[in-house]
Amino acid sequence: MDQARLRRLLRDVKKGKLPVEDAFAELKDLPFADLGYANLDLHRPLRGGFPEVVFGESKSKEQLAGIVGALRAQPGVVMVTRLSEEKAALCLEIAPEGRHFPQARMFVIRRKVRKLGRVAIVTAGTSDIPVAEEAAVTAEALGATAERIYDVGVAGIHRLLKRREAISKAKVAVVVAGMEGALASAVGGLVGIPVIAVPTSVGYGASFGGVAALLGMLNSCSPNVAVVNIDNGFGGGFLASLIARK
Amino acid sequence: MDQARLRRLLRDVKKGKLPVEDAFAELKDLPFADLGYANLDLHRPLRGGFPEVVFGESKSKEQLAGIVGALRAQPGVVMVTRLSEEKAALCLEIAPEGRHFPQARMFVIRRKVRKLGRVAIVTAGTSDIPVAEEAAVTAEALGATAERIYDVGVAGIHRLLKRREAISKAKVAVVVAGMEGALASAVGGLVGIPVIAVPTSVGYGASFGGVAALLGMLNSCSPNVAVVNIDNGFGGGFLASLIARK
Amino acid sequence: MDQARLRRLLRDVKKGKLPVEDAFAELKDLPFADLGYANLDLHRPLRGGFPEVVFGESKSKEQLAGIVGALRAQPGVVMVTRLSEEKAALCLEIAPEGRHFPQARMFVIRRKVRKLGRVAIVTAGTSDIPVAEEAAVTAEALGATAERIYDVGVAGIHRLLKRREAISKAKVAVVVAGMEGALASAVGGLVGIPVIAVPTSVGYGASFGGVAALLGMLNSCSPNVAVVNIDNGFGGGFLASLIARK
Amino acid sequence: MDQARLRRLLRDVKKGKLPVEDAFAELKDLPFADLGYANLDLHRPLRGGFPEVVFGESKSKEQLAGIVGALRAQPGVVMVTRLSEEKAALCLEIAPEGRHFPQARMFVIRRKVRKLGRVAIVTAGTSDIPVAEEAAVTAEALGATAERIYDVGVAGIHRLLKRREAISKAKVAVVVAGMEGALASAVGGLVGIPVIAVPTSVGYGASFGGVAALLGMLNSCSPNVAVVNIDNGFGGGFLASLIARK
Amino acid sequence: MDQARLRRLLRDVKKGKLPVEDAFAELKDLPFADLGYANLDLHRPLRGGFPEVVFGESKSKEQLAGIVGALRAQPGVVMVTRLSEEKAALCLEIAPEGRHFPQARMFVIRRKVRKLGRVAIVTAGTSDIPVAEEAAVTAEALGATAERIYDVGVAGIHRLLKRREAISKAKVAVVVAGMEGALASAVGGLVGIPVIAVPTSVGYGASFGGVAALLGMLNSCSPNVAVVNIDNGFGGGFLASLIARK
Amino acid sequence: MDQARLRRLLRDVKKGKLPVEDAFAELKDLPFADLGYANLDLHRPLRGGFPEVVFGESKSKEQLAGIVGALRAQPGVVMVTRLSEEKAALCLEIAPEGRHFPQARMFVIRRKVRKLGRVAIVTAGTSDIPVAEEAAVTAEALGATAERIYDVGVAGIHRLLKRREAISKAKVAVVVAGMEGALASAVGGLVGIPVIAVPTSVGYGASFGGVAALLGMLNSCSPNVAVVNIDNGFGGGFLASLIARK
Amino acid sequence: MDQARLRRLLRDVKKGKLPVEDAFAELKDLPFADLGYANLDLHRPLRGGFPEVVFGESKSKEQLAGIVGALRAQPGVVMVTRLSEEKAALCLEIAPEGRHFPQARMFVIRRKVRKLGRVAIVTAGTSDIPVAEEAAVTAEALGATAERIYDVGVAGIHRLLKRREAISKAKVAVVVAGMEGALASAVGGLVGIPVIAVPTSVGYGASFGGVAALLGMLNSCSPNVAVVNIDNGFGGGFLASLIARK
Amino acid sequence: MDQARLRRLLRDVKKGKLPVEDAFAELKDLPFADLGYANLDLHRPLRGGFPEVVFGESKSKEQLAGIVGALRAQPGVVMVTRLSEEKAALCLEIAPEGRHFPQARMFVIRRKVRKLGRVAIVTAGTSDIPVAEEAAVTAEALGATAERIYDVGVAGIHRLLKRREAISKAKVAVVVAGMEGALASAVGGLVGIPVIAVPTSVGYGASFGGVAALLGMLNSCSPNVAVVNIDNGFGGGFLASLIARK
Repeated sequence: MDQARLRRLLRDVKKGKLPVEDAFAELKDLPFADLGYANLDLHRPLRGGFPEVVFGESKSKEQLAGIVGALRAQPGVVMVTRLSEEKAALCLEIAPEGRHFPQARMFVIRRKVRKLGRVAIVTAGTSDIPVAEEAAVTAEALGATAERIYDVGVAGIHRLLKRREAISKAKVAVVVAGMEGALASAVGGLVGIPVIAVPTSVGYGASFGGVAALLGMLNSCSPNVAVVNIDNGFGGGFLASLIARK
Repeated sequence: MDQARLRRLLRDVKKGKLPVEDAFAELKDLPFADLGYANLDLHRPLRGGFPEVVFGESKSKEQLAGIVGALRAQPGVVMVTRLSEEKAALCLEIAPEGRHFPQARMFVIRRKVRKLGRVAIVTAGTSDIPVAEEAAVTAEALGATAERIYDVGVAGIHRLLKRREAISKAKVAVVVAGMEGALASAVGGLVGIPVIAVPTSVGYGASFGGVAALLGMLNSCSPNVAVVNIDNGFGGGFLASLIARK
Repeated sequence: MDQARLRRLLRDVKKGKLPVEDAFAELKDLPFADLGYANLDLHRPLRGGFPEVVFGESKSKEQLAGIVGALRAQPGVVMVTRLSEEKAALCLEIAPEGRHFPQARMFVIRRKVRKLGRVAIVTAGTSDIPVAEEAAVTAEALGATAERIYDVGVAGIHRLLKRREAISKAKVAVVVAGMEGALASAVGGLVGIPVIAVPTSVGYGASFGGVAALLGMLNSCSPNVAVVNIDNGFGGGFLASLIARK
Repeated sequence: MDQARLRRLLRDVKKGKLPVEDAFAELKDLPFADLGYANLDLHRPLRGGFPEVVFGESKSKEQLAGIVGALRAQPGVVMVTRLSEEKAALCLEIAPEGRHFPQARMFVIRRKVRKLGRVAIVTAGTSDIPVAEEAAVTAEALGATAERIYDVGVAGIHRLLKRREAISKAKVAVVVAGMEGALASAVGGLVGIPVIAVPTSVGYGASFGGVAALLGMLNSCSPNVAVVNIDNGFGGGFLASLIARK
Repeated sequence: MDQARLRRLLRDVKKGKLPVEDAFAELKDLPFADLGYANLDLHRPLRGGFPEVVFGESKSKEQLAGIVGALRAQPGVVMVTRLSEEKAALCLEIAPEGRHFPQARMFVIRRKVRKLGRVAIVTAGTSDIPVAEEAAVTAEALGATAERIYDVGVAGIHRLLKRREAISKAKVAVVVAGMEGALASAVGGLVGIPVIAVPTSVGYGASFGGVAALLGMLNSCSPNVAVVNIDNGFGGGFLASLIARK
Repeated sequence: MDQARLRRLLRDVKKGKLPVEDAFAELKDLPFADLGYANLDLHRPLRGGFPEVVFGESKSKEQLAGIVGALRAQPGVVMVTRLSEEKAALCLEIAPEGRHFPQARMFVIRRKVRKLGRVAIVTAGTSDIPVAEEAAVTAEALGATAERIYDVGVAGIHRLLKRREAISKAKVAVVVAGMEGALASAVGGLVGIPVIAVPTSVGYGASFGGVAALLGMLNSCSPNVAVVNIDNGFGGGFLASLIARK
Repeated sequence: MDQARLRRLLRDVKKGKLPVEDAFAELKDLPFADLGYANLDLHRPLRGGFPEVVFGESKSKEQLAGIVGALRAQPGVVMVTRLSEEKAALCLEIAPEGRHFPQARMFVIRRKVRKLGRVAIVTAGTSDIPVAEEAAVTAEALGATAERIYDVGVAGIHRLLKRREAISKAKVAVVVAGMEGALASAVGGLVGIPVIAVPTSVGYGASFGGVAALLGMLNSCSPNVAVVNIDNGFGGGFLASLIARK
Repeated sequence: MDQARLRRLLRDVKKGKLPVEDAFAELKDLPFADLGYANLDLHRPLRGGFPEVVFGESKSKEQLAGIVGALRAQPGVVMVTRLSEEKAALCLEIAPEGRHFPQARMFVIRRKVRKLGRVAIVTAGTSDIPVAEEAAVTAEALGATAERIYDVGVAGIHRLLKRREAISKAKVAVVVAGMEGALASAVGGLVGIPVIAVPTSVGYGASFGGVAALLGMLNSCSPNVAVVNIDNGFGGGFLASLIARK
């Protein structure tokens, strides 16, 4: 229930147009209506640019078609993640104004959004790039400028040092790394900005599908590092965009 | 805001005693008041017998004294769990009408509560009894009749079989077992009532502080078994009491 | 050995129709007969409505055909879980009176059963629905009324709050959630009924195939929550039905 | 820059072919200068308010005395974490201008710092408060305004809803929770700001010293949540302060 | 109910001394009595030498005194494991005919038992000896001859080779080892007898309290190796004694 | 080098028929020859009936053909485990005197072996049967009599009790169970013989591929239980056969 | 070096107060130059024989073609690991001077390299050979002599003893083993040289994909053992080659 | 039996001074004597400087006194690790020629040893120093020169870069780090020498007592890194010394 309707209802009671008991019946359910409202309060600014996100992996083609069809009619950015080639083609068919980002495995319908600050997307190796692209495409769709700095892992630390200044200019860095995940600590130590670490499942054996990188990042000796789920490039890009609001 | 007050408010608006804007100001915050109300809806019947529970282990003596002092003025049952002897003595000093159950490590101020059905509390060994007593004392304080059936582990399955009938008469069984936790499956297979399994940290080595029992219970081949946290006698007794409502 | 036969035997001994040693030979094996009996005691009411359950996943097509063929001749409900499309078609061929529930991946031969109370089946997201349907179809086959309340996860808490009342009307709630599994705690806090939590393997990375949800549910701060195995919709629905007995 | 080029550059300066300022411009970006400088770049603003942090737990009393004695002569904020009462007293003796925060187990010598924005510090229960206080004291020492919102766990979701607006006004929220850690998801869903989740070791049994909360937070269905180490209140407060820079 | 009594009862029925209904009342509870009997069938030969075992660690001094007092009146061997010095002294006071084995932390009242075969008890290092002694004392009390072969770990494989023949003469070997637990595989490869492997918690760091040894032993490339719980010397000695029956 | 040859060599030295340096050259390599001998000592009786075992899963078809071709020329039993249908057909082609056991996934060339005692092979469910058959076929090939007792899990404990006597007659029981693995404890409690427990990977979710059953069996409250690797039917059957030697 | 000093130095060069060579000496140690240089320092000798290594598994065929095409123009050894047959064929097409090692799954373009010492490559079983070949091919490409000693696991310890001398002659041993990984400890105890242990994922059940072997090797009772990642034959061969430098 | 003695024995047989049967009796046990010899072959050079090592933690004071008393009479270096202050004092009393290293918690009786090369001991933080000192003291006692480079963790990467050259001059580096253990990768990337990584238990929460560092090091993207057990400074120093042999 929005505020205008609430005022009208109260006026109707006053004028005798609405019996007390009818108003009571409607208002006693208000919390949820109002909560919905509260929720709109939250979502409204998002609708002005922040995404409706669909996790594509667990959706059937029918579901996906329906959801994308419905969302393209909405004013906000639409983002579908973890898409196979086939599902991406389907999305494009339904919403030709959108764009497919194969490396990021995303489909995006871009909208005019408020300009955000710069987000550095940093990877340890080339195998981490798909996850990094998910973060970068997300950040760009949300209005941020994504500065891609790839393949600067700590085994060749000079590569990272050369890019220190570029990272420092961002408002936030998303560090994407598998194996031992040490890059997050190294970047965190080099720059004075928040670092969102995204562990990846790149590795084998005792990397345990990204657990080694995850633990390494959680135990970072740099205090400006926080961590999201393994391979969660979208989450890294989304959170960085929130931080990059000017 | 309770319903009576909401009705009064609407009547006052109707009568012109309350300006629309004032009513609006009060009602636009209603969700939380109403949610509070909704919550009261939940808690009120509990206050008529269900406990205010205090996890004693993490409270300082000062905090404990304050909380028990405040709660004894309330009409509902008061239960404090995981008490040291020293803290239990403190509780008794503050609320002499309460009772200390040393084996269960609980302090309880009993109140008149609605009578619930019978709850069987079953243990595998004698070392599981403290956790079982926490469940039993909880169930009794909530109005249930606790049938204690202790030391009937599967290594001597005939002990359990002798007690099958006694367990069957209950509306629900709480099975408390450490080590391999096999008793939950065995009881679940013997009786047609719900079984709440409480793994205990009894054991050593590869029991991993109760994890072996927990996993055993989660993988029970009897489909009438659900599990609560390791050593969570209170939770087992509480949930069983909800199920034992007639 | 049933009681009538035991009486007859004793009478035959008294009348001298049965030598003591013969009676002894028969009675010394009684435990198992009697235990069988005890077991019948348990199973008999189940046969009046409670299911013979077959875990379809690990059965060959031959085994499945044989089992379903045998069970359809029995008076009780027949439930086969975790069926592929192909195996479901086989079941339908053998027992055309049964019904296939594709989303739940179950095959059910319904029978006249005692009416049970209402069971709320609640999911966090749409990906949890197959497991929830397994619970709902199970509960319905057992005589319960299943109230489906889907996609009300805590990331949009207002969706859940709107359905609070609907959940409260049930005798028990089955909460089905993957990822962090927080919904079980939230539902447990909103309603005063037992909550059976079913963690699902929905998620990726550090969800570890449902372990994150499982641990979250086991550590629920709401004391009315118990947990079954990951993706065990059948178990959740079965146990809830036991609790929903009027 | 290779050696040949460096030699040539120096010769050009000598010969007057290259102005000193041009050579300076090129050489001042020499990585090492830059690295040292970059590091200064990072540390300098910190020294103007950001902390020198000492992890008190692993230091001997002698080491602690020496370090605090040295740091108090520096212009920047000094923070010592995880202090016993005894070590805190020692800190106060050496630097009476500092202040001991017993609940946060910190010792802080405050300095004039740049004013940062508002940071909401939210806890699930009262047992999480020490970790939350570490975050709050850290944020305050760094110039942020800490809004403490304690004991609003999801088991009583209305408590959280009442505080939604207060959290929304902050630039970032630090959510501190043990057990199942569900609060991070719930807060993340309610507000459109970044959420830094701090799992705590509060709980027992299958909480595994905070692992359950950690996994819950990493798998949050709210995409604006990132996580730091278990019980790492300092890290949460530090990172939130970086984000709260205006 | 024992067989003699069953026969008597049947005879009484025959003679008319016992009404059918009275016999029926008694016999309808027979299963459990009979099961008790079945159980006696199992325990009786044990009472002729096999132990009543008490896990001393989890017993209070009062409980221990009561149990030992009761057991000494029985004809079978009495074994109390995991005893502190203090509890052992108590046992000796109550049952001076018993003996305390400090290294094994056991108290044993020996009885005349059937002679069993030879059991080799083999350890990797000196730190494994307490667990090995628990196995050896157990085996000896049960009638076996324990051949102690200590400190022959694989890091000095020649030490083991020198003792190959001595091990081969036994009917079964109990191999006790911590750290990597490799000794079980080595012994298993050298001899053609069953090997019961007892992992110990000797080690540190990635030994994880005996898990490394446990996993090593479970994955033994020698097919004649089975494993008991970490530090379970008693179980190793008990099972070996069963195998060593001639 | 055998003892006769050693004696002869020394005599030749004495007689001057063998120069000291030649004898030295031969004897200084003695340890390995002797060790090989020692090894033969071990293997020789095995060759009279105990198997050459080939783990078929990791062998290429070429390797398998070569190995089976070589082994069939040897006097001892030949056993190949974990065979696909295709590889089994290949084995049969190469050694038509052998036999394929499809359920056990084994190929066996039987030989005349010493008769061993009775081994009970017990399973909890029907899904455990392939692993049990691997144990049974192994035991039979080695000379034991395998008593198959299948589908007697603890969820229907009376099924097990009916078979207690049959199990008791064996010299050793192999208990094969997945899910919670409780059957090992139950069997261990019912009979006074050694129990070799084989956890299986039957189950889902928190069974973790057999870990739940493995932990349950390691923590068995019955002291006559030892455990082999998950799904290691061969190991269970082999070790049981060693124990069943008369 | 701070900026002021850099400016002063340049001015001094200009004014002739500082000879170019003195300035050069100071500036050539500027960390960045040094870092670049240092890095060259490291890489230069490598380029003269040490490999450019490409992890083939995570590369697309296009990427692989590009990388191999570029690297073959360089003077150093080129190594591509974890190649499918198809990708190996592609490599051979692009660089026919290279060689494919199918068992090691590597492609190598050999170059003239400095001769290194002898490296013993030891395996427990035949299934470990692919990983061992990766180590051996790596070591040989780097200039070492690889001594292959395969299938000498501890279950038949005499096989290892026969090869002790051969292993001792190497400067370092790479021990490759799955299952319980005990071979590393046994080799470590037999020889006085460094042992690099490579756990393999050979095994099943509780080997957990190589974790059991990994833990066994980390807990080795032989102090001359260090461990690399599961299945990391390349790492083992590379590190051994560094150690085998004469 | 050493070679000289074997030759003498054979000569005595030849000369008739030793009857064939006496020689036979002695030689038939030769394998083990020879193996002992082989073992002496290994140990002899060690005795010329390499240590007899005693793990002090698990020894009683009596055992320690006896062992140290015995070892001081031997020619080789004596090292006792993990000593409490009290036990160290005892060692000094018994062997006043030894020296106590409190930070390393070691007691060492130094002997004249062959000079080895330089070993760099590098730590991430100050809390890692005790483990590093254990490595350094071990290396020094064995003849190496230990270059201590402490507190150069990746959070301040420039500190490490400054010490690159110093590390490069060593023949091998021992890198000691807790928390995320990233330093091993960074050092491995900077220098072309073997790196032995020692994870430490420094950290809290998700460091899991050193597991995070251990996994990070095992997954190092630098191929010249191998890992020893958590906190195993002795192992790191010992293995490095073997590598540092000139």
